[in-house]
Amino acid sequence: MTFVVLNAFTRRFLDGRLPEWVEPHFFGNTDELYELAPQAEIAWFDSFDLPSTYEATKRAGKLKWLNTLAAGVDPFPLDLLRERGVTFTNGAGLNAITIAEYAVMGMLVIAKGYREVVRSQERHEWLHDAPGKMELYGSKALIIGAGGIGGKVAKLLRPWGVDVTGVRRNPAPDALTMDEWRARLGEFDWVIIAVPSTPDTERMMGAEEFAAMKPGAAVLNFARGAVIDQEALMAALNDGQVGSAFLDVTDPEPLPSNHRLWGFDNVHITSHLSGRSQDTLFARAAERFLDNLDRYERGEPLLFTVDLSLGY
Amino acid sequence: MTFVVLNAFTRRFLDGRLPEWVEPHFFGNTDELYELAPQAEIAWFDSFDLPSTYEATKRAGKLKWLNTLAAGVDPFPLDLLRERGVTFTNGAGLNAITIAEYAVMGMLVIAKGYREVVRSQERHEWLHDAPGKMELYGSKALIIGAGGIGGKVAKLLRPWGVDVTGVRRNPAPDALTMDEWRARLGEFDWVIIAVPSTPDTERMMGAEEFAAMKPGAAVLNFARGAVIDQEALMAALNDGQVGSAFLDVTDPEPLPSNHRLWGFDNVHITSHLSGRSQDTLFARAAERFLDNLDRYERGEPLLFTVDLSLGY
Repeated sequence: MTFVVLNAFTRRFLDGRLPEWVEPHFFGNTDELYELAPQAEIAWFDSFDLPSTYEATKRAGKLKWLNTLAAGVDPFPLDLLRERGVTFTNGAGLNAITIAEYAVMGMLVIAKGYREVVRSQERHEWLHDAPGKMELYGSKALIIGAGGIGGKVAKLLRPWGVDVTGVRRNPAPDALTMDEWRARLGEFDWVIIAVPSTPDTERMMGAEEFAAMKPGAAVLNFARGAVIDQEALMAALNDGQVGSAFLDVTDPEPLPSNHRLWGFDNVHITSHLSGRSQDTLFARAAERFLDNLDRYERGEPLLFTVDLSLGY
Repeated sequence: MTFVVLNAFTRRFLDGRLPEWVEPHFFGNTDELYELAPQAEIAWFDSFDLPSTYEATKRAGKLKWLNTLAAGVDPFPLDLLRERGVTFTNGAGLNAITIAEYAVMGMLVIAKGYREVVRSQERHEWLHDAPGKMELYGSKALIIGAGGIGGKVAKLLRPWGVDVTGVRRNPAPDALTMDEWRARLGEFDWVIIAVPSTPDTERMMGAEEFAAMKPGAAVLNFARGAVIDQEALMAALNDGQVGSAFLDVTDPEPLPSNHRLWGFDNVHITSHLSGRSQDTLFARAAERFLDNLDRYERGEPLLFTVDLSLGY
């Protein structure tokens, strides 16, 4: 039997479906998590907060395979996992549909000035002119990080007549490389960021990049807050060089209530909810985990493993 | 030379492009409109308000062809135009893209609970759970009136994995007829209304139809306010049978500030802005008008003529 540690929350998706060689141990709180972690050969730790997930991972000295439903793995001790030779599988793509729908909602909300429409309803006031007059149709979007999430955004936008250009680390047809996109920034109405958070991508959007954007264009961030230099963004928003920012992620999170970003009328802050605006994430993650358990038993490579050097 | 009366607003789209046989007369206000109208053989009257457009049409006794950029022609004196044998061309489809994008925005805003996100930003408050957890992907939509606008909504939704069923007056493959849709109402997460406003469609959505909907489903109206029995809708919203309503159109318009609809937290009122949330309507309408001028000269049938009996 193999000692497998799981969050009790996954039980309703896994009960009766785990293979016989699995000895499941469910934790319902952080104390139970810390007690079970050292015995785990396989663990799906996703806990109630990131620090306890991190701490449990450190304590899991027997771990061979760690699973998470998160797509971004920067909060995990990747160096430690690499030292110990742990296989790490993540939730890349699990919330891609949800986030991609959220991203297009962000574009539409900006294009049509929808927030002003919400406010007019609160005043019980009929508006006589549209606060936003842009169509997505015929506009141009740059998707920096056209992987699981960014690629899905492209798939939603292309049939709508949006001219989409992707940026990928590895050369691909129709996509720019990481060396090429900066020179092209001025062409796009939308700059959508969906890169993994790594040292390479930290503050990749700063004063120079904002200055190179098409004046009045919008930037949307579904990666990590640190990918954007927020001070530079606020300056560019203040002088109108950047027309709007739709920020699912900020630096830090949660954004403190006294942070200046909240007050910008051309900033939309969505509290890192884009991937959570669904009720199917756990169900989908459980299907993937069960599939990988079968592969683990057969000694096959697991699917959706994280490259512990690259960090995604 | 042919006497053609045009709103001065169209001048920047038409200057230098009108054929030589056209003698254009531009009106800049209602007085000029009323003075020019009786001499017009061809007119594109779209004025500053509907009553003056209506009045000018009545005064235009020499009119052979009337053009409008509006899609809905119910505010025009259709019987009078028919008596006089006037050809009437409209803007069907001109704002279809814009309205269709607006409709999907409405669905996304409901699915993700986006209005709560807007409010949280106004409170400078980071949300810890998503106020809406629905994906459009995998949901089912009924589009009542799958013509220019409704058909475009279907074209935007299908590549997103939404299961779309259309309703058309004339039998078409993959579409229900006007006799069939009521029996199927319980299947859909979204009921999107985009029918022309005619006596047949008035109050087509009433107490029985709302009761037949899937509990908690949403209704979105981009047709005319009168297509919905608003009292019945408010009752169905109050008891939760209808989960949300996204109303681009209301009865009456503008909706008075003391109207109860404004205060419903599951109603989204968008002040008939869906088609106006673009800056290309006049440009597109001008292209169509110029094309029809050539057809008029050659004696060919004009495109996008209104059936004065059917009313669309």
